Amino acid sequence: MNNFTFHNPTRLIFGKGMIEKLTTAIPAVHHIMVTFGGGSIKKNGVYDQVIRALKGRDIVEFWGIEPNPTIETLRKAIELGKGKQIDFLVAVGGGSVIDGTKLISAGLNYNGDAWDLVKKGSYYDCIPMGTVLTLPATGSEMNNGAVISCKETQEKYPFYSDYPVFSILDPETTFSLPSFQIACGIADTFVHVMEQYMTTTGQSRLMDRWAEGILDTLVEIAPQIKNDPKNYNLMADFMLSATMGLNGFISMGVSQDWATHMIGHELTALHGLTHGATLAIVFPGTLRTLRDQKKDKILQYGERVWGINYGSANERIDKAIEKTEQFFRSLGLQTRLSEVNIGDETITEIEHRFNKRGVAFGECQNVDGKTARAILENCK
Amino acid sequence: MNNFTFHNPTRLIFGKGMIEKLTTAIPAVHHIMVTFGGGSIKKNGVYDQVIRALKGRDIVEFWGIEPNPTIETLRKAIELGKGKQIDFLVAVGGGSVIDGTKLISAGLNYNGDAWDLVKKGSYYDCIPMGTVLTLPATGSEMNNGAVISCKETQEKYPFYSDYPVFSILDPETTFSLPSFQIACGIADTFVHVMEQYMTTTGQSRLMDRWAEGILDTLVEIAPQIKNDPKNYNLMADFMLSATMGLNGFISMGVSQDWATHMIGHELTALHGLTHGATLAIVFPGTLRTLRDQKKDKILQYGERVWGINYGSANERIDKAIEKTEQFFRSLGLQTRLSEVNIGDETITEIEHRFNKRGVAFGECQNVDGKTARAILENCK
Repeated sequence: MNNFTFHNPTRLIFGKGMIEKLTTAIPAVHHIMVTFGGGSIKKNGVYDQVIRALKGRDIVEFWGIEPNPTIETLRKAIELGKGKQIDFLVAVGGGSVIDGTKLISAGLNYNGDAWDLVKKGSYYDCIPMGTVLTLPATGSEMNNGAVISCKETQEKYPFYSDYPVFSILDPETTFSLPSFQIACGIADTFVHVMEQYMTTTGQSRLMDRWAEGILDTLVEIAPQIKNDPKNYNLMADFMLSATMGLNGFISMGVSQDWATHMIGHELTALHGLTHGATLAIVFPGTLRTLRDQKKDKILQYGERVWGINYGSANERIDKAIEKTEQFFRSLGLQTRLSEVNIGDETITEIEHRFNKRGVAFGECQNVDGKTARAILENCK
Repeated sequence: MNNFTFHNPTRLIFGKGMIEKLTTAIPAVHHIMVTFGGGSIKKNGVYDQVIRALKGRDIVEFWGIEPNPTIETLRKAIELGKGKQIDFLVAVGGGSVIDGTKLISAGLNYNGDAWDLVKKGSYYDCIPMGTVLTLPATGSEMNNGAVISCKETQEKYPFYSDYPVFSILDPETTFSLPSFQIACGIADTFVHVMEQYMTTTGQSRLMDRWAEGILDTLVEIAPQIKNDPKNYNLMADFMLSATMGLNGFISMGVSQDWATHMIGHELTALHGLTHGATLAIVFPGTLRTLRDQKKDKILQYGERVWGINYGSANERIDKAIEKTEQFFRSLGLQTRLSEVNIGDETITEIEHRFNKRGVAFGECQNVDGKTARAILENCK
């Protein structure tokens, strides 16, 4: 096990009707900005619950943080917030609204263009923020990461700042989600876990078990959610799994990968694909390409998550990768580039971008432009 | 899933050589009290590492916090600390030293006898403290609980205060532990998990998986540790499991039990038995006594942890309980009251004490004096 430091100070406020706890969760501050995405939360009652809980507080609303939040939009929020002397932020929405609000919370304390902070990669002197999550997927509600895009340059990069002070998770807010969003959220959670698990074996027995525990849970609940998406206990386990999948709880003392995400981000940047949908395409390709390097862990994963305990090592590995792709397809997601009309031109562009950045990704830092191309060729 | 709030602010600093991080982990305070148990840490180098890391700081040492820390000892530390205007505490040792230091941290901010706080059950206006853990077992390094005894009255009660600001866990500090202490630590961790898991089924699939993940890890490493107690990776997984077993990570949204602990505390209070050793005796008795109430969960546990997937329900339950007792025995622990020379007189006294307190314990709050007697009869 590697040495590590773990510290996750986010207060999780979880359950039915918990949005009313906003009233007491926000400290005695003067000017609150509440950030939103589109208008769906005006239809499902979440907006009303938030406004009711904030009655009597000085709030300003900022609407329109889009999926894959862009610096172009966030600059407007930062300008508004500086003018209003905002000293607390509440993000109401999914991972994109929360990610975007993390950059706003940094930008409000920075005298320059917030895109500089994204290029720098991190900034920790932020205005405090809380969240009300409505779409389980990214885990952003309980970590210090975000992903920010630039429309102008078609770029998309990770950015690190402070943890939310609190996050309110009411599974009932998910009842009105479109099935595609739920499918992408499940795929996103699955691959988040894989980025922390599908690495060298034997680093921590406990962290392996906990990663497998989230995978087992997703495999168990996914088909049930398809038939019963308003089942409170199912959605509660999905919501909790998504948060626990990327809050540091399964990455203590173990190496991580994240190559699939870096390639997926490029597909979103270039084609606007939903994040979870890119992962369902790329991750099976990553496994096919790095099957030798990841051999031992694929075998462990196949046996423990899918019960594959027969056949030769090669046959088991084939089966485990097949099961993984089938799982994404069972969610209703596409798993091949050809299905989303992406061809050689994009592959070449991504290879070029990886080469230009001059860094290689993945646990072994060997996913350079050439390997990224190989992975994408394996997703055709 | 039940509604819940989760917040664990303790910073975990984990790994080889991490004790030197004490230097930067303690904020700029004036007067530090460092608390210790007996002298074993002077032999294994831990004391020297701590003192080296605190070089140049104003420290006072308090020695002699005993196993099952007593109010009689802690009163002395509180008196010393008040005289020295202590504003930060560092506990160096196992769960007893950490538990005791939690009461010191409360008592230093309280103008009265600290035993009042124990009787009250909680106190949250505490002097901040950090810990250097040397014995994985209680999880006290990453939770806000403690258990304090009174020698005079032979009483032992839980007490809740603030979380440690940080805890340093270096698995190498465990290399010199006696095998009995390791065995008790594994049993303690196992039963901590059970108190949060062996309850009503179907509350959270994810929390069940994570609890089973710790149990699986303990079952896998215990026999290996017996043969190889200086294996870093084994002891790292043990240390991490003990901390994760009682820091709130596996109890989100699920009910808990703790009846076994309440009975075990009485055995310690009356006979001075080591905490983990009492649990290895009482827990199988709890399962035998409440086997109907806990039927579904025992079946799930038997199948997932021990692979028991054959025979009638009753046979599977028998097998799961037998496997549990065998596991404790495989650690080298005793599992029957007769083996530690405890007889009917003690059983009657514990029944009497439970009745006198007028509360019943356990998930269903049905472990009153009569049921406690039945459990103890089932441990003979």
